[in-house]
Amino acid sequence: MKLVPLGDKIVLKQCEAEETTKSGIVLPGQAQEKPQQAEVIAVGPGGMVDGKEVTMLVSEGDKVIYSKYAGTTVELDGEEYIIVRQNDVLAIVK
Amino acid sequence: MKLVPLGDKIVLKQCEAEETTKSGIVLPGQAQEKPQQAEVIAVGPGGMVDGKEVTMLVSEGDKVIYSKYAGTTVELDGEEYIIVRQNDVLAIVK
Amino acid sequence: MKLVPLGDKIVLKQCEAEETTKSGIVLPGQAQEKPQQAEVIAVGPGGMVDGKEVTMLVSEGDKVIYSKYAGTTVELDGEEYIIVRQNDVLAIVK
Amino acid sequence: MKLVPLGDKIVLKQCEAEETTKSGIVLPGQAQEKPQQAEVIAVGPGGMVDGKEVTMLVSEGDKVIYSKYAGTTVELDGEEYIIVRQNDVLAIVK
Amino acid sequence: MKLVPLGDKIVLKQCEAEETTKSGIVLPGQAQEKPQQAEVIAVGPGGMVDGKEVTMLVSEGDKVIYSKYAGTTVELDGEEYIIVRQNDVLAIVK
Amino acid sequence: MKLVPLGDKIVLKQCEAEETTKSGIVLPGQAQEKPQQAEVIAVGPGGMVDGKEVTMLVSEGDKVIYSKYAGTTVELDGEEYIIVRQNDVLAIVK
Amino acid sequence: MKLVPLGDKIVLKQCEAEETTKSGIVLPGQAQEKPQQAEVIAVGPGGMVDGKEVTMLVSEGDKVIYSKYAGTTVELDGEEYIIVRQNDVLAIVK
Repeated sequence: MKLVPLGDKIVLKQCEAEETTKSGIVLPGQAQEKPQQAEVIAVGPGGMVDGKEVTMLVSEGDKVIYSKYAGTTVELDGEEYIIVRQNDVLAIVK
Repeated sequence: MKLVPLGDKIVLKQCEAEETTKSGIVLPGQAQEKPQQAEVIAVGPGGMVDGKEVTMLVSEGDKVIYSKYAGTTVELDGEEYIIVRQNDVLAIVK
Repeated sequence: MKLVPLGDKIVLKQCEAEETTKSGIVLPGQAQEKPQQAEVIAVGPGGMVDGKEVTMLVSEGDKVIYSKYAGTTVELDGEEYIIVRQNDVLAIVK
Repeated sequence: MKLVPLGDKIVLKQCEAEETTKSGIVLPGQAQEKPQQAEVIAVGPGGMVDGKEVTMLVSEGDKVIYSKYAGTTVELDGEEYIIVRQNDVLAIVK
Repeated sequence: MKLVPLGDKIVLKQCEAEETTKSGIVLPGQAQEKPQQAEVIAVGPGGMVDGKEVTMLVSEGDKVIYSKYAGTTVELDGEEYIIVRQNDVLAIVK
Repeated sequence: MKLVPLGDKIVLKQCEAEETTKSGIVLPGQAQEKPQQAEVIAVGPGGMVDGKEVTMLVSEGDKVIYSKYAGTTVELDGEEYIIVRQNDVLAIVK
Repeated sequence: MKLVPLGDKIVLKQCEAEETTKSGIVLPGQAQEKPQQAEVIAVGPGGMVDGKEVTMLVSEGDKVIYSKYAGTTVELDGEEYIIVRQNDVLAIVK
């Protein structure tokens, strides 16, 4: 089973959080705020959305930063995904 | 009796919730949050909606994920349906 | 006396609630939430509404489902009516 | 002195409330909620309002139903008027 | 010194409140709510405002009724003025 | 260092408040509400802003009245400036 | 790793706060409100954003003032960035 997003929607999968603070301490995933970094799993076709032409600018596999309060969390086959509109993707991490 | 949606509206029927957690425990429908997965029962004709041309992208029988706070719940002949606008359908589950 | 709605407005009359629960118990009208099913009494002419062309899609006599928080209740000759915009009509019941 | 409304504005004068309940009891004006029925006193010329062309559909002398929370109450020569936009007029009573 | 309003803005000066109640009692200005009647002191040139063409319909010296919660009060040379957008002028008093 | 505003933004510097009440008492700046009168320090180029063509109507050195809750206060080299959009300038004081 | 902003988004890095009050006292960074001055790190390509053509007006390396409540803070490689839309950039500091 897979998610096929409509219009300008994008299916994301949140990256595992494990990062090192500036002073070098490693914080395990649970002890910190979830990062807003995610991997693009599926991209909608774009086209006319809300009466406006939208061109999709991200691709499957991109690592992206998305807007904090955006998106809907869904669960499929025990995996958690976030579906956002492309406008809520702020930047691609390269 | 059946529901014939207007414009960009779509009639959904929520899928029965019965899922297995990652660790393998089966949760019966009542013990968990309702999933946002639903089956498309009827699709409006699209056309001019709120001054914007809308093309319908889902079909009867599709399994879809819809936006959490969207839709109006209606009851007809003892069955419960959700009517949403196509814009509130996030993805098709294939 | 009768109500002649303007623009995309529609005059509805709520259907009497008397329904049977799944388990077969009949609930009289007062013991339950008002259903959102109503009969169309009069339909505005459509045309330019808020700068957008609106075509009317419902007809007098249609049974419709309308959006929960929409509409204005008015009383005329001791009868209660609801006036909604066509956009608040979700589906026709056929 | 008289009020000459601008754009899509309409000057209304509320009808005196005196009505009979279903069971036949007459309620004097003060003992009940104000009805939303009013008489059209003056009609603006329409034209471009907020960047949209508006055609006026009501005429002086029409009895109309207007939206509950719409309008501004003004007093002129000891008489109270309500000024609403045409969009807030729901129906004409004929 | 004088105020030259921009776009669709209008400078108003509130009329002194001194009115007679229906029963004939004269209320001095301080004992009552401020009326929304004002005199037009200066009128902006109109033109493109917020991407929409606006034609000015009021003239210097007009007595107008303006929307209750509209406008900004400013003081110049010890005189108090209200600056509103033309859309907040409901009617001209003639 | 100087501020170069973008689009329809305008850099203002608030005028020092020192005014005489009607009865002739001079209030020093701190004892009263800040006036909304300001001097234009820099004017953005206008052009397409939010999809709408904007022509700038104020010039450097103009004294203007601006909308009470508009603008962002910024500090540069120990001086305080307010940056507003032209739409928030109500009138020029001449 | 670097951030590549989409559409009209801009990646900013806040300038270190260390400033001298008018009376000459130096306040270290922690003792004061964060300034809204930032350096432009990366600029999106502009183009059609929300159905409107956007031309980018800032460049990498510009010092800018941005709107107080705008933007999303993100962390990448232990550095903190703010991503804003160009419309939230008020002025360039030159």
